Amino acid sequence: MSTTQTRAPRNGVDTPTLFATLNAVKGDPELAKFRFRATNTWISGTHNRSVIRGFYGAGQEDTTRTDDFTYDADHPAVLVGGGNAPTPVEFLLHAIASCITAGVANIAAARGVTLHEVSSTVEGDIDLLGVLGLSERVRNGYQGIRVTFRISGDAPADVLRGLVEQSRARSAVYDVLTNGTRVDIDVVAA
Amino acid sequence: MSTTQTRAPRNGVDTPTLFATLNAVKGDPELAKFRFRATNTWISGTHNRSVIRGFYGAGQEDTTRTDDFTYDADHPAVLVGGGNAPTPVEFLLHAIASCITAGVANIAAARGVTLHEVSSTVEGDIDLLGVLGLSERVRNGYQGIRVTFRISGDAPADVLRGLVEQSRARSAVYDVLTNGTRVDIDVVAA
Repeated sequence: MSTTQTRAPRNGVDTPTLFATLNAVKGDPELAKFRFRATNTWISGTHNRSVIRGFYGAGQEDTTRTDDFTYDADHPAVLVGGGNAPTPVEFLLHAIASCITAGVANIAAARGVTLHEVSSTVEGDIDLLGVLGLSERVRNGYQGIRVTFRISGDAPADVLRGLVEQSRARSAVYDVLTNGTRVDIDVVAA
Repeated sequence: MSTTQTRAPRNGVDTPTLFATLNAVKGDPELAKFRFRATNTWISGTHNRSVIRGFYGAGQEDTTRTDDFTYDADHPAVLVGGGNAPTPVEFLLHAIASCITAGVANIAAARGVTLHEVSSTVEGDIDLLGVLGLSERVRNGYQGIRVTFRISGDAPADVLRGLVEQSRARSAVYDVLTNGTRVDIDVVAA
């Protein structure tokens, strides 16, 4: 551990602060409890919009995000939508790629590896017979997702592959997408 | 079925085309097979960017989307990121809200219900002791997600609640988030 504690900033990661954060959370595990949020508003047809900004974490409500992040979703024309934005399921592909990529950068910094490139392509296969209610034997969601990473840096190929593997093993999105989580839905009808 | 087949457009949903699409897929189930894609590129630290545009579906590569949809992700400052965009896990909250909302609009149109408002708030609880590698007993992903819908329209409250319930039962994102799916990861290290 003593070598990793002294890692310099690398890959745009403030490595000393990363280790200081780890040590702070070790000292007070309550700091690790986070609550993220989004609000969504229907616009018309399959077109709707989410706003993401506030969250709770590290023992307090965040004050560093001072602007809303706004994202639309829609169905394409072939699915009788307006095509104003990606479909909801495509945001799952963004989520898995971005989660593992962020982890790779952190882990590389912690291990003293300088990255040159990290890119990925994600594909998800879905048979809409489920969603359309035309088959009870076909699931509603993706039947499978494939992610292909391309990574280069100042380390041997097996070390670079190990960064992706460790990031996968600690990825919040990978965990949710592969293991599922509880989703509770309440409705206020007025 | 005969009454629903003659529904007029409603809620911004082209209901006749929706039913024509359902009938076309019934006649040729291969049309229901879709493949969605995203590409992601690391920028610096935990900041990275996805591009979403092309997809395969209804028997062909889509040509109706003529522009890229581009989305960043990042960690906030408290998690040693640049705060340039939401975290990957927050896009999961956008995905679940937008998927169920799109379905509500379609199902309402099919059932002859005119909607006035559909809005939702989503919260996800996550204990970062898992992601940070500080506890083997804490999962990496969300421990639970809660969605609260507010819906109004020209139908009784129980009918409005039934729209959300039917949309949940046919939601691709709800299925993936609650049941999980297979995610395969390949790495090309150069």
